[in-house]
Amino acid sequence: MAVYVYKFGGTSVGSVERIKAVAEKIKKARDQGDQIIAVVSAMSGETNRLVALAKEIQSQPVEREMDVLLSTGEQVTISLLCMALHEIGCQACSYTGAQVRILTDSSHTKARIQEIDDRKIHADLNAGKVVVVAGFQGVDEHGNITTLGRGGSDTTAVALAAAIKAKECHIYTDVDGVYTTDPRVVPKARRLNKITFEEMLEMASLGSKVLQIRSVEFAGKYNVALRVLSSFEQGQGTLITYEESEMEKALVSGIAFNKDEAKLTVTGVPDLPGVASKILGPIAEQNIEVDMIVQNIADDATTDFTFTVHRNDYQRAMSILESVCREMGARQVTGDDRIVKVSIVGVGMRSHAGIASTMFKTLAEEGINIRMISTSEIKISVVVDEKYLELAVRSLHKAFGLEEKEE
Amino acid sequence: MAVYVYKFGGTSVGSVERIKAVAEKIKKARDQGDQIIAVVSAMSGETNRLVALAKEIQSQPVEREMDVLLSTGEQVTISLLCMALHEIGCQACSYTGAQVRILTDSSHTKARIQEIDDRKIHADLNAGKVVVVAGFQGVDEHGNITTLGRGGSDTTAVALAAAIKAKECHIYTDVDGVYTTDPRVVPKARRLNKITFEEMLEMASLGSKVLQIRSVEFAGKYNVALRVLSSFEQGQGTLITYEESEMEKALVSGIAFNKDEAKLTVTGVPDLPGVASKILGPIAEQNIEVDMIVQNIADDATTDFTFTVHRNDYQRAMSILESVCREMGARQVTGDDRIVKVSIVGVGMRSHAGIASTMFKTLAEEGINIRMISTSEIKISVVVDEKYLELAVRSLHKAFGLEEKEE
Repeated sequence: MAVYVYKFGGTSVGSVERIKAVAEKIKKARDQGDQIIAVVSAMSGETNRLVALAKEIQSQPVEREMDVLLSTGEQVTISLLCMALHEIGCQACSYTGAQVRILTDSSHTKARIQEIDDRKIHADLNAGKVVVVAGFQGVDEHGNITTLGRGGSDTTAVALAAAIKAKECHIYTDVDGVYTTDPRVVPKARRLNKITFEEMLEMASLGSKVLQIRSVEFAGKYNVALRVLSSFEQGQGTLITYEESEMEKALVSGIAFNKDEAKLTVTGVPDLPGVASKILGPIAEQNIEVDMIVQNIADDATTDFTFTVHRNDYQRAMSILESVCREMGARQVTGDDRIVKVSIVGVGMRSHAGIASTMFKTLAEEGINIRMISTSEIKISVVVDEKYLELAVRSLHKAFGLEEKEE
Repeated sequence: MAVYVYKFGGTSVGSVERIKAVAEKIKKARDQGDQIIAVVSAMSGETNRLVALAKEIQSQPVEREMDVLLSTGEQVTISLLCMALHEIGCQACSYTGAQVRILTDSSHTKARIQEIDDRKIHADLNAGKVVVVAGFQGVDEHGNITTLGRGGSDTTAVALAAAIKAKECHIYTDVDGVYTTDPRVVPKARRLNKITFEEMLEMASLGSKVLQIRSVEFAGKYNVALRVLSSFEQGQGTLITYEESEMEKALVSGIAFNKDEAKLTVTGVPDLPGVASKILGPIAEQNIEVDMIVQNIADDATTDFTFTVHRNDYQRAMSILESVCREMGARQVTGDDRIVKVSIVGVGMRSHAGIASTMFKTLAEEGINIRMISTSEIKISVVVDEKYLELAVRSLHKAFGLEEKEE
């Protein structure tokens, strides 16, 4: 008998009908002899409703109490799902994070899991029951209710799968897997059967919002085989796992892009040690996150320094840089918030040369000017004008042979 | 510094505005130097919403899961109330029943409190915090969430007051105290400043729905001074306490009535031992609760046996009796569901004769026929035709001098 963790997000349990459908899916797996631990989120809309109630009282709600409030969302779902399972003759038992117990640190609203007590779960599974666990929540050593932050239910599922040594952790969502790129941009985008953790991390951080980054990191660290599937359709989804020999054939697994970035450049900076920290220090102090960073030596004794931030932080970053520029005696600050980042991701890059030149050549042939380049071991990112987004993604998708094969 | 337990029902915390008003009330008491433990119910409407969700899934929801579901209602309120307290500069900390911990037995949906751990509460009070506890819920020895049944928040409040040796337990509700009778029937009904536990029990069980019976029993047993007050108006409410000398002056404290009863009579029953159990046994087996029971010896060797049940059970009880009647060889079964029970309640009855005759004389003078009589140490109940309800209550209220004094 294999143990599986099934995780259902808010949309998948968004109504009584959907909860019943989830129960049927679980029963089917049980009937095939599998043992199931279901991790569920709050019904879609519920968390927003609770947040709105809190905001009517405090603009910055006390974090400890916010966790007490929000954790009720999943608690409602676990009880309803257990009722639905009982109704179709499937024994089940629900647990809140505190009941399991999922021990976390005390960082309210963004707690980290430290330990999971799996005794009750094993006892229930062995008694033939389905175990239903509230995602997103835990309890600290003092008995305070904590939550894991946005997307925390994925983390709960992966952590449980690791603790219980589940065969696979299934993340049921409203898409049927991970695609080579966004099908809304490239209709011929193809669902991947497999992808590595590292590739998935790059894809996720670049804006493919299928999975929460932390849960992928966690799954990689504890070697939990993750599978992304649709709650609503049949299919095997996409398995996220460690690199296997057959994977090496693919040079590039997917094309990711991010439309939320803006670019800032300080030109004519006197080229002295500590330039980067002088420029980025004041940015970090204002809690502005920096993504890509590029520095070029110009031909005189000055350097040009470019980085990207979230588009929402663009104006703030610009005004900080203007005063930094004056203090440093740099020439000027320029910026652009009409840019996008397009990246090719693939573990095959490690062992194959020429990927970068194929990428640059493809973009050049389409007349797309590259404004910034940054590379990592399994990823090459370029910044281009916003207007070229679709063209760039489509031409790269085709150039790297990612299109759906015509049968 | 005196410790008070304040309990706020669903209507008192039914909206964000009302929660803010409750916070202000608590802060005022804190500012006067009192230490406050607030026990709150689910926001009005919330429990019904959750029950409806469950019923969409199971007509008889699994009780363990029902408790998991319903307990979220109070959990929402405790967090919101703490936020409201913080917002006006009042330190506060929330606890679910499991967190306190309020240990109960494992009878889901109607659990009984066994033990309360008061350590966290004392620590918080000593640290100057208001303690906010979810009413209605607890946890069993295995960590399962339990609920105490309808009105259970009152029980939680009284149990906490007993455990913590609070000076008084305030039950804030939508009425400003306990009245001599229902003011909708007798406009001159008067709010009582004090009433004994025993009287309150008789009043409550007879349909004055201010307080849950169990909480009054509990308060009496552990000698917790209970006070019923309005959430919305100023006033000292009604103190429910043990009999004191000044109370003995009042012969009758109030007039209670119950419109939900129906009467059944078996006539011409052969007068042999075991008649009562032969008649009531089959009724009890069908889970029909019996209230008043009267048996008269008729002049021949037969007896008439009369009892009352809830009006909803009238038809069922009637058909059970008809077959019992045949088996026993009794003459016939008659019944009436157009009756009401009217009772006078007062500890003064114990030491004063003539109360009963005053009652019967008053009703006779109004031409009201008494159909059934039953007495206890501090109560006399009569059954009369439904149409006489208002007349009976008003005339008795006047006869025993309960009317509001004209200044």
